[in-house]
Amino acid sequence: MASGTGIRQTALSGGGQGPGALEPLVQTVLEALAKGAVRRGGPVPAGTPQELAADVERVCAEADGDDALHRLTELLAHGSADPADPSCAAHLHCPPLAVAVAADLAVSALNPSQDSWDQAPAATAVETLLLQELAQLVGYDPAEAAGVLTSGGTESNLMGLMLARDRVLGRAAARQIELSGVPGTGPRPRIFASAAAHFSVQRSAALLGLGEDAVIPVPVDHELRMKPEALATALRDCVARGEVPVAVVATAGTTDTGAIDPLGTCAALAAEHGAWLHVDAAYGGGALLSDELAPLVGGIALADSVSLDWHKLGWQPVAAGIFLVRRAETYASLARRAVYLNPQDDEEASYPSLLGLSLRTTRRADVFKIAVTLRTLGRAGLGQLVDACHELARGGAEAVRAHPRLELHADPVLTAFLFRYLPEGADPAHTDQVNAALRRRLLREGRAVVGRTELPGEGPGRVRLKLTLLNPHTTAAEVERLLHAVAAAGQAEEENQ
Amino acid sequence: MASGTGIRQTALSGGGQGPGALEPLVQTVLEALAKGAVRRGGPVPAGTPQELAADVERVCAEADGDDALHRLTELLAHGSADPADPSCAAHLHCPPLAVAVAADLAVSALNPSQDSWDQAPAATAVETLLLQELAQLVGYDPAEAAGVLTSGGTESNLMGLMLARDRVLGRAAARQIELSGVPGTGPRPRIFASAAAHFSVQRSAALLGLGEDAVIPVPVDHELRMKPEALATALRDCVARGEVPVAVVATAGTTDTGAIDPLGTCAALAAEHGAWLHVDAAYGGGALLSDELAPLVGGIALADSVSLDWHKLGWQPVAAGIFLVRRAETYASLARRAVYLNPQDDEEASYPSLLGLSLRTTRRADVFKIAVTLRTLGRAGLGQLVDACHELARGGAEAVRAHPRLELHADPVLTAFLFRYLPEGADPAHTDQVNAALRRRLLREGRAVVGRTELPGEGPGRVRLKLTLLNPHTTAAEVERLLHAVAAAGQAEEENQ
Repeated sequence: MASGTGIRQTALSGGGQGPGALEPLVQTVLEALAKGAVRRGGPVPAGTPQELAADVERVCAEADGDDALHRLTELLAHGSADPADPSCAAHLHCPPLAVAVAADLAVSALNPSQDSWDQAPAATAVETLLLQELAQLVGYDPAEAAGVLTSGGTESNLMGLMLARDRVLGRAAARQIELSGVPGTGPRPRIFASAAAHFSVQRSAALLGLGEDAVIPVPVDHELRMKPEALATALRDCVARGEVPVAVVATAGTTDTGAIDPLGTCAALAAEHGAWLHVDAAYGGGALLSDELAPLVGGIALADSVSLDWHKLGWQPVAAGIFLVRRAETYASLARRAVYLNPQDDEEASYPSLLGLSLRTTRRADVFKIAVTLRTLGRAGLGQLVDACHELARGGAEAVRAHPRLELHADPVLTAFLFRYLPEGADPAHTDQVNAALRRRLLREGRAVVGRTELPGEGPGRVRLKLTLLNPHTTAAEVERLLHAVAAAGQAEEENQ
Repeated sequence: MASGTGIRQTALSGGGQGPGALEPLVQTVLEALAKGAVRRGGPVPAGTPQELAADVERVCAEADGDDALHRLTELLAHGSADPADPSCAAHLHCPPLAVAVAADLAVSALNPSQDSWDQAPAATAVETLLLQELAQLVGYDPAEAAGVLTSGGTESNLMGLMLARDRVLGRAAARQIELSGVPGTGPRPRIFASAAAHFSVQRSAALLGLGEDAVIPVPVDHELRMKPEALATALRDCVARGEVPVAVVATAGTTDTGAIDPLGTCAALAAEHGAWLHVDAAYGGGALLSDELAPLVGGIALADSVSLDWHKLGWQPVAAGIFLVRRAETYASLARRAVYLNPQDDEEASYPSLLGLSLRTTRRADVFKIAVTLRTLGRAGLGQLVDACHELARGGAEAVRAHPRLELHADPVLTAFLFRYLPEGADPAHTDQVNAALRRRLLREGRAVVGRTELPGEGPGRVRLKLTLLNPHTTAAEVERLLHAVAAAGQAEEENQ
């Protein structure tokens, strides 16, 4: 077959010859990564998105045959925002550990798919084992808990809310939801989440057919932490209106400030109202790895379900999401027999199946890199990385406080903090403009990738910059230099406007 | 930081030093893959799932520190069902091309995330460009179309049905679905899919809050192709009952037989009833790469939305799902402003954002390996691989026909076919047992991974075996040997029972 195409081009990654076929190609990739990084020469390529898109179009038009792997890899490396650069600190976008990346190569090469045992014999067993360890880390009883690897917090949050919906509204698999927004047709299901919770809560409500406005935003304090008395009131009001409190979503580590909602109080209030408690610990779950920070997420084991993301504070390449439930029997919605994947007689013959645990069918063995990382570094080793990033954030916040033109929003809880540049005697709208513009200036000049967000609420004066420190090898001096670059860009924008 | 942990253990994959840190680790992985493959010595490890799980537990308990990467990789390789082995031919589980795997390593190392430009500058542009090419391949006008990379057909099917639901029922983002199953509260939304359509159609309906039984299964012919007159009747009956036909799902390549529903007729009937047409071409989309087979999916460009999976007939490691819509303006449900990801002033400054195209937030740049593969092999090169697998399936079907104890269900449409072993004068239930048992015997002996499924319907006699031929380097003789091994295992089971 394929007589017109070269051996190198159609070689497979598996079988006895796979490793040999991969070797020169992997070498090509490593060389191109190195060249691209040098060409970039900073955290992000200088220039506008249009200039970069034109570059991409040109290279994609020119590259073909054996040339393509090298040219496109160099392009990708040159055109990346590299989280391993100390000046790339905008998002919950971690620099992966080399050992996790190497482990992930094994997964690509062997291509196990977790939807049936006969596509992933060992990977099925590894996932089962690792989920028990992660359940234990959360404080669940591993013999009672269940879970699955996900594409991230968004999918995990969706799963938690789906289980909550189906528990309250009856199993959706069996029948259509018997509730509606039409007056008089039934009580309205409601979800409670803080005003600083991740937008995937609203998005999940829409996907689940409950409507985005099924989510009642609970007010937050200055640090963006849910106010417990506000949750109590919101739940009481909901019941008084004759509506159904389906779920409380508590955030352990908001995207912007790392704020952790009062988990114990959320659990008590959810239980009191018969609502499911889902804890979105996509970011804050990293605290579980650190002896110093773990108390911050005390109470997480009271949750009915939890989201963790090891592609945040876990240094894994995307995706490394984890969804866990405290009690496996609450995990019924997805149970499913597919005669070509998990027939009953196979199950009787003790062939395990993870099919009924995931929203997906085909599913990459994302568990493997996590298992390798945990064995390589141990919880203690990973905890040191978490602590290092936490220290960097504390140092960065101090440096902001010490700078006459920078204003800190609040002390870091985990590894991120909000701040802004203060132009001379500026009104709030102008301050917003300068901060948004200075961030784009840093991007355009290829000098830094810092975050920008807005505080909850209405009106001007809410734009903030953000540093999310996820690179444990960054030094305090580098963070300080980054903050000075921010201030300099602010001054340049101020003079510019 | 991390003074207690070695440099090798905490090195990052990015930055200037990433490639150097990766090099020895990647070497370790390639060596361990080779060793594991030798130890496996066949398509799948011999033994029971329990024996393998015990192995996994032991290695995971023993491996630590620098040792872990090698030991766990060897374990994964030893414990894999390797689709690059000619006797591993059960599922739509392809052996990846080495070049695609190498490209995927670059993605793991740089870790772009597609939810904001400043986490993935070049990868954002590559995804936009590749989706235009794929839209063109489907026959869409790339200037009108839109799409996104997905985790696979299940997510793509969910997206198509979500857009269909929201078009008919109003934007779910804005309000709760105003329909319910309670009699008298509103017309019931319905989805039409063949009885052989993928189970993700039912699962999506449940997730979307419509209930699994919103899906009306349309009868199929012997080859498992939807009967067009049955669809016409089902749609007419639905309207007569006062229900709302939300979507027709046409399958282009059923999982078991590769059957392709009559796409043109489905499009005409969907249009007549104002229903969305989603074409699930997760498998059959591969035909678009082959001049010979492309006519089989004629009419696909009439679909409102399409699922493609390049981790099936595309030789990519998982995940390489693609979701496309014909007209970008129908893609409204997910449009979303997240102030920390795509603020309005960034958009005005021409920073593009893919956030509103995906159900996910954090998202791996799965597009990159596809782009590299397409540049390396071209459509023609990939088409040769598709044709080679198609030829293998035709040859295999002939070999089944020629074998006195094997019975072919139907000629292959794409690269798969169903068949069974016929025990001496057996009743249907016994034949089912023997076939299910012979497949497990082959697994247990580590000799072959063949598929098993059941034909639609009720009662015994529906169990079938399946070969899904996705390895273009497999020879006709190897397929024949595999079929002889199946027959021999059948005979052994027959004598055993």
